[in-house]
Amino acid sequence: MNRLHRAGQVWSPVITPFGPDLEPDSDRFAKHCRWLLGNDVGLAIFGTNSEATSLSVSEKRGLLDSLVAAGIPAARMMPGTGHCAIGDSVELTRSAVEHGCAGVLMLPAFYYKGVSDEGLFRYFSEVIERVGSAALRVYLYHIPPVSQVPLSLALVERLLKAYPDTIAGIKDSSGDWSNTQALIEAFGEEIDIYAGSEHFLLQNLRAGGAGCISATANVNPGPIAALARDWQGADAEQQQQALSALRGVFEQFPMIPALKSATALYGGDDAWHRLRPPLVELDAEQRKALASALDMAGFDMPGRRA
Amino acid sequence: MNRLHRAGQVWSPVITPFGPDLEPDSDRFAKHCRWLLGNDVGLAIFGTNSEATSLSVSEKRGLLDSLVAAGIPAARMMPGTGHCAIGDSVELTRSAVEHGCAGVLMLPAFYYKGVSDEGLFRYFSEVIERVGSAALRVYLYHIPPVSQVPLSLALVERLLKAYPDTIAGIKDSSGDWSNTQALIEAFGEEIDIYAGSEHFLLQNLRAGGAGCISATANVNPGPIAALARDWQGADAEQQQQALSALRGVFEQFPMIPALKSATALYGGDDAWHRLRPPLVELDAEQRKALASALDMAGFDMPGRRA
Repeated sequence: MNRLHRAGQVWSPVITPFGPDLEPDSDRFAKHCRWLLGNDVGLAIFGTNSEATSLSVSEKRGLLDSLVAAGIPAARMMPGTGHCAIGDSVELTRSAVEHGCAGVLMLPAFYYKGVSDEGLFRYFSEVIERVGSAALRVYLYHIPPVSQVPLSLALVERLLKAYPDTIAGIKDSSGDWSNTQALIEAFGEEIDIYAGSEHFLLQNLRAGGAGCISATANVNPGPIAALARDWQGADAEQQQQALSALRGVFEQFPMIPALKSATALYGGDDAWHRLRPPLVELDAEQRKALASALDMAGFDMPGRRA
Repeated sequence: MNRLHRAGQVWSPVITPFGPDLEPDSDRFAKHCRWLLGNDVGLAIFGTNSEATSLSVSEKRGLLDSLVAAGIPAARMMPGTGHCAIGDSVELTRSAVEHGCAGVLMLPAFYYKGVSDEGLFRYFSEVIERVGSAALRVYLYHIPPVSQVPLSLALVERLLKAYPDTIAGIKDSSGDWSNTQALIEAFGEEIDIYAGSEHFLLQNLRAGGAGCISATANVNPGPIAALARDWQGADAEQQQQALSALRGVFEQFPMIPALKSATALYGGDDAWHRLRPPLVELDAEQRKALASALDMAGFDMPGRRA
């Protein structure tokens, strides 16, 4: 039983702020993390929405060190540590374990496509064996729309059998509820099954999942965490509808630039607009459309300007 | 005019040997590179077939340093230096320039899919600007079947206009001859257009392309280089047919493991069988089938055991 975070957990793949020369901005990063924690949302730093693959390993280690130095509790962090090169995955995973992070969210090597389960098993196995720590907790990251490297149920089962004390969960960002359901049915008693979006939060919790790790938890953390706490309450359906409606607004735009634009706008801090290539910020027209749609939806980021 | 290698060039994406703990094996690497050079094939180290994305930046820098230290001429090298993180691409590209490499073959950032030409332009632009060297020659790497991030003709045009002294060519591994043809028609007078396989070598040279950068140049370098030299000769079609037939044998197997198996077998050196996860070596049955098919095809790697 590795479940550290039984039902009702929300994590945010924390967006990463950049300075004028596109260097990571550790102060703004810590401030955003504090605000998320204050809204009862955990820190899945270095996720897809964090532009993690656009950061070098040393940049990520520097950001992690800076968060810990700023007093952000590592026990509330689940850094993304999967890279194409095993050595990179080992280096960042080891750093996360040394800092006492709750776990790591691990992408498979994602350059080669159509690789075998045997190859993916060896990838995760090599990283786990090389890190070699009883404190390591690995959350597998299934995100075929982006990585194009799916993690099959057979692979999850094999990893769980080989590393029952290490494999702690999976994030399902397939967007396919039937896959999440199958994961919960197969493994939900043993490990944490997270939905990749709050669209599926209530469904996930009712089915026996652990909660969600969601992009929009960067901007709407309070209400998402509220449903994760109150999912057995009378107004859970209404809360779910409100969450999905707001998520729908963001989904009309490229997600990562839209999260950053909203953060810039509602925090009064233009620096948040910056992204690293190959991603591109929203243009003026898109920003205006997003601001207008968020305003119409009654969106707010309470306490953000403080 | 940036063309360093006018018509008739063959490069090999050099396969990378690993030791028992999957560490890069610089001695076997240098030996293989020498054999390729002796067959008139240039060294596109750190390509897709090199398992380059499975190597950390420091491992690649170490291998490049070791080749130079072993007396392999950098002027015959075209390392792959594109990574998802710009800082990684800059670091390895700078090292290649400092060593005097002929050029670098650059993948776009490949994690995010469906990115815009603007984002890809910024990616290449940031790397070029940050390296900031008049000696830099960039060969763009179009390999949509693997990277899933195609480079459009409009993007190539824009990069060529912005960096006419730096953009030196493109490798087209789309497998789509009509795309290679369009690239040659649009840019073949200005830059080197390489086919990604010797299947298209004669077609490429007749149309005005520069040659090929091909996986199977690792194992069949002599005959491929011979056609690149003799493509205007009377038996060019016959040579092309022989090359394609042998390539077809390798294409019946997973390509990278098959290249390594053939190298192990024909060089009498089992260490070459090793691959890094997520790739997996051929199993016993596949090895037997490959050996038999190569034997039937009259395949050899002359001078390999020497």
